[in-house]
Amino acid sequence: MKLTVYLAGEIHSDWRNELITMANEKGLPLSFVSPQTDHDRSDDIGEAILGEQPSALYRDEAASQINNFRTQVLLQKADVVIALFGETYRQWNTAMDASAAITLNKPTIIIRPDSLIHPLKELANKANITVNTVEQAVDALAYIFE
Amino acid sequence: MKLTVYLAGEIHSDWRNELITMANEKGLPLSFVSPQTDHDRSDDIGEAILGEQPSALYRDEAASQINNFRTQVLLQKADVVIALFGETYRQWNTAMDASAAITLNKPTIIIRPDSLIHPLKELANKANITVNTVEQAVDALAYIFE
Amino acid sequence: MKLTVYLAGEIHSDWRNELITMANEKGLPLSFVSPQTDHDRSDDIGEAILGEQPSALYRDEAASQINNFRTQVLLQKADVVIALFGETYRQWNTAMDASAAITLNKPTIIIRPDSLIHPLKELANKANITVNTVEQAVDALAYIFE
Amino acid sequence: MKLTVYLAGEIHSDWRNELITMANEKGLPLSFVSPQTDHDRSDDIGEAILGEQPSALYRDEAASQINNFRTQVLLQKADVVIALFGETYRQWNTAMDASAAITLNKPTIIIRPDSLIHPLKELANKANITVNTVEQAVDALAYIFE
Amino acid sequence: MKLTVYLAGEIHSDWRNELITMANEKGLPLSFVSPQTDHDRSDDIGEAILGEQPSALYRDEAASQINNFRTQVLLQKADVVIALFGETYRQWNTAMDASAAITLNKPTIIIRPDSLIHPLKELANKANITVNTVEQAVDALAYIFE
Amino acid sequence: MKLTVYLAGEIHSDWRNELITMANEKGLPLSFVSPQTDHDRSDDIGEAILGEQPSALYRDEAASQINNFRTQVLLQKADVVIALFGETYRQWNTAMDASAAITLNKPTIIIRPDSLIHPLKELANKANITVNTVEQAVDALAYIFE
Amino acid sequence: MKLTVYLAGEIHSDWRNELITMANEKGLPLSFVSPQTDHDRSDDIGEAILGEQPSALYRDEAASQINNFRTQVLLQKADVVIALFGETYRQWNTAMDASAAITLNKPTIIIRPDSLIHPLKELANKANITVNTVEQAVDALAYIFE
Amino acid sequence: MKLTVYLAGEIHSDWRNELITMANEKGLPLSFVSPQTDHDRSDDIGEAILGEQPSALYRDEAASQINNFRTQVLLQKADVVIALFGETYRQWNTAMDASAAITLNKPTIIIRPDSLIHPLKELANKANITVNTVEQAVDALAYIFE
Repeated sequence: MKLTVYLAGEIHSDWRNELITMANEKGLPLSFVSPQTDHDRSDDIGEAILGEQPSALYRDEAASQINNFRTQVLLQKADVVIALFGETYRQWNTAMDASAAITLNKPTIIIRPDSLIHPLKELANKANITVNTVEQAVDALAYIFE
Repeated sequence: MKLTVYLAGEIHSDWRNELITMANEKGLPLSFVSPQTDHDRSDDIGEAILGEQPSALYRDEAASQINNFRTQVLLQKADVVIALFGETYRQWNTAMDASAAITLNKPTIIIRPDSLIHPLKELANKANITVNTVEQAVDALAYIFE
Repeated sequence: MKLTVYLAGEIHSDWRNELITMANEKGLPLSFVSPQTDHDRSDDIGEAILGEQPSALYRDEAASQINNFRTQVLLQKADVVIALFGETYRQWNTAMDASAAITLNKPTIIIRPDSLIHPLKELANKANITVNTVEQAVDALAYIFE
Repeated sequence: MKLTVYLAGEIHSDWRNELITMANEKGLPLSFVSPQTDHDRSDDIGEAILGEQPSALYRDEAASQINNFRTQVLLQKADVVIALFGETYRQWNTAMDASAAITLNKPTIIIRPDSLIHPLKELANKANITVNTVEQAVDALAYIFE
Repeated sequence: MKLTVYLAGEIHSDWRNELITMANEKGLPLSFVSPQTDHDRSDDIGEAILGEQPSALYRDEAASQINNFRTQVLLQKADVVIALFGETYRQWNTAMDASAAITLNKPTIIIRPDSLIHPLKELANKANITVNTVEQAVDALAYIFE
Repeated sequence: MKLTVYLAGEIHSDWRNELITMANEKGLPLSFVSPQTDHDRSDDIGEAILGEQPSALYRDEAASQINNFRTQVLLQKADVVIALFGETYRQWNTAMDASAAITLNKPTIIIRPDSLIHPLKELANKANITVNTVEQAVDALAYIFE
Repeated sequence: MKLTVYLAGEIHSDWRNELITMANEKGLPLSFVSPQTDHDRSDDIGEAILGEQPSALYRDEAASQINNFRTQVLLQKADVVIALFGETYRQWNTAMDASAAITLNKPTIIIRPDSLIHPLKELANKANITVNTVEQAVDALAYIFE
Repeated sequence: MKLTVYLAGEIHSDWRNELITMANEKGLPLSFVSPQTDHDRSDDIGEAILGEQPSALYRDEAASQINNFRTQVLLQKADVVIALFGETYRQWNTAMDASAAITLNKPTIIIRPDSLIHPLKELANKANITVNTVEQAVDALAYIFE
């Protein structure tokens, strides 16, 4: 049994590579997918495909439809979703993806620092598991295969 | 035909009363429900019902289960969801509720100021309608009954 | 038992009033909803609520989000859907609404003239009933209550 | 991860081969399915299997049940749907397939020329992405695998 | 709490009236719906609405679409389904309605004589309750309200 | 907005009346349904309706189909489920009803004494809220209407 | 793309082998599953696994639970369902399987002789395709891959 | 066709290995998954991943979220569920998993000794098959492939 894991969340740190490296070191039969993690590319993709837009609003609207298309395809393929919240930015896409995954009954792990316990408390309660570190999330993935 | 509207989002301004007043002035056949809007009450509700908890983490976990229970009951009863984002706070519950509603195919309107266009672009694209003001949201509700 | 009927389709003839009149004359316990039937209003609604848009494309995009919001609310409330195709225009909204209704397992009647038999054959096959006239559709509604 | 793409829409131009060629040149891990694209065959298939029918109406009804059977099988297997509208014909099957796909939460791209912006505005708003050219659609598919 | 009960099955005996009378005598808060129980009317309804058909095959096809439309509307409204099989006829509509109801998770009671135990054994196993008499079915309905 | 609450669980104490009394004293707009709470009646119901059975096994099978029919009807009508576990008996029906309710996305409250924390920990984690007393459950219901 | 086809229906003729042979001769990428086609085995399977039962009724009940278990597993794996009705027997399992498949949106073909047109008219109308011969059903399967 | 079987239930006897050995001896194309069967490990897993908790209650809550995560992932992958009840312990997780599987329409077999017929009667009635021994369950699995 091979599982597909969608890695939602923060795109300004290297946590996805860390998590994938740890999972590979444990020999877990997992493949990983994620949103576009190049921030500039994800902001530019609308105009890159649809051409120049009349203002920042429409530029954002153009980009968001391509990004949401990508996420919907990959999230539907995922058996497990992991969403990491960092301490900066509003990260509404992370909350959006985690909530969509939970509503679709995708088993979901949230990773967040202690400083975010309070503002994330309702989302954490809805997720299956909430942890502080990438390593803990990998431990939970490994537990599936024990 | 009477519709139930769930008003998700910011609890630090008076936008719900403004919206309900406008809707009533137009004579729209709507009833409104919402999350707990008394911030202290929503933070205290866990210990109020379950008793004192061993730390802030568990206090938050206790509160969140009661808040999520309430939201799930009321969101399932709603025909329409309106989610308002303000300029302060992370508002992850607002994003969580809006994303859950959209995933459940509840027709959804997002209200947000221009300053939040960029960080909310993917969620706005998934909602049915995105507007800037409470008045515009009421206009959209009124359009259902024209 | 009172049923709600969504009347999708052509907005340039008076067929909805004819159908409702016939149904009322038979005393059928039905209430009726429909998309916006004032063509100009449905084209203008985006700018009426969201303000002037930078071009015809964005004007149309603004209008369509409000129209789709209205349709989604009312279609979800409908027990039966009737979709009438006339001989002019491409009427893609009519096809879109009928196909969405059928996919959602809403019992659906299509009304179309003989001249449209061939281009509508696949959609007609997916609908529950396909008829030529408004009167026939009302007869099918009346049959529910015999 | 290999994805299956259903190519709905116009059968009177060579757009499917163009799209598949472009996707192959990019090395995208995709397989493609589509409705019957031989127009005469799709019109004749009912009598070819079920025998001569008493009139054009029944000939069309016979063909449509076989065509809808094929579409339902293949659409259920698809991870992504692309629907292309051309400038001629009413193309109600294209609208029907696109609307069914969207209602089933299949990620959907619409391709249409500028001349069809207005009549397709509501369907375009419901799709994930709307573009003008086959190349843009392939760019969106490629973006999934970046 | 008032429940709606769909009475599928045999249309050549008076069992529906007997059942409704017994339920009313017990004062159960139930309303009842059923398929067309006038056999000739259900066979004629296609031509009555759609006009004369070219052969018996098409006459039957015309009737069946109207009958299925009626059944789909009423079955979707039902909280409980009761299906009675008699000793004569093939009664495939009864089996079709019972199986559809069970697949839709509608609580379902089958009534059948001892002589049909063997041929109905798989359908009886899938239903919630299988009984021999109308009176037993009414007893089961009454038990809901104890 | 009036809600229906299904009261699953222990039938050997008077907790349902206590809960309903407390809810009524608070004026909550709730109606309550429950499984058969007369233990003998629930054991006898199969033979009472279907007649004497050849052994205890078949007597139990006969009773269970009637009891499950009742539960399915009432659970589908419920907006909220409350399941109380007492200290005696295995109470597998309580676990079955709570798990079914949670799987159907019914908002669910579990009431259990401290002595059952360990054996019920996984079910408690899946429920929305877990409390120790009937009063706490009523407080959670009341919170919906604040 | 390889599809799985469930062959419901008559078990007293050799139609399954004929159909599979024809499909293989055409090189169609299909695999086939079916209910137990050894009539005696399907009647005996309950007692074979569960031991002797107290009467014919319980013997049938025992067999039906094993047969329904098998059918549910295999039907859920099927992409297409074909149901053949012959001229003898009541064949309620065939009707049950076809109706369940249609309700689950499985693309479904019914094969029946002309003599059964009238009693099967409603079920035929709900299926995607209705034909007279095994060869026609194979032609429809082949059409998927043209 | 290869099927995945989830083995829910008792973790204090060696029944899983017995069942897997029997299935392998028959050459059945099955793979097996199960909950954590090391009791201590399943109790400790919360603190093992999340760190020491303030009391037994929170230790249990921590463990249960990891165990439920594992179960949800594996149950969603299962084509068949087998749940074995032994004579000791309350085994609420077994009842929870069986009820969740049945509610999700997973074909389900319950294994239980005669001594548990009465307290398990409602759950047994909802399962597809109820047997006394592991061997009988393997016979039912083998019957799928006859």
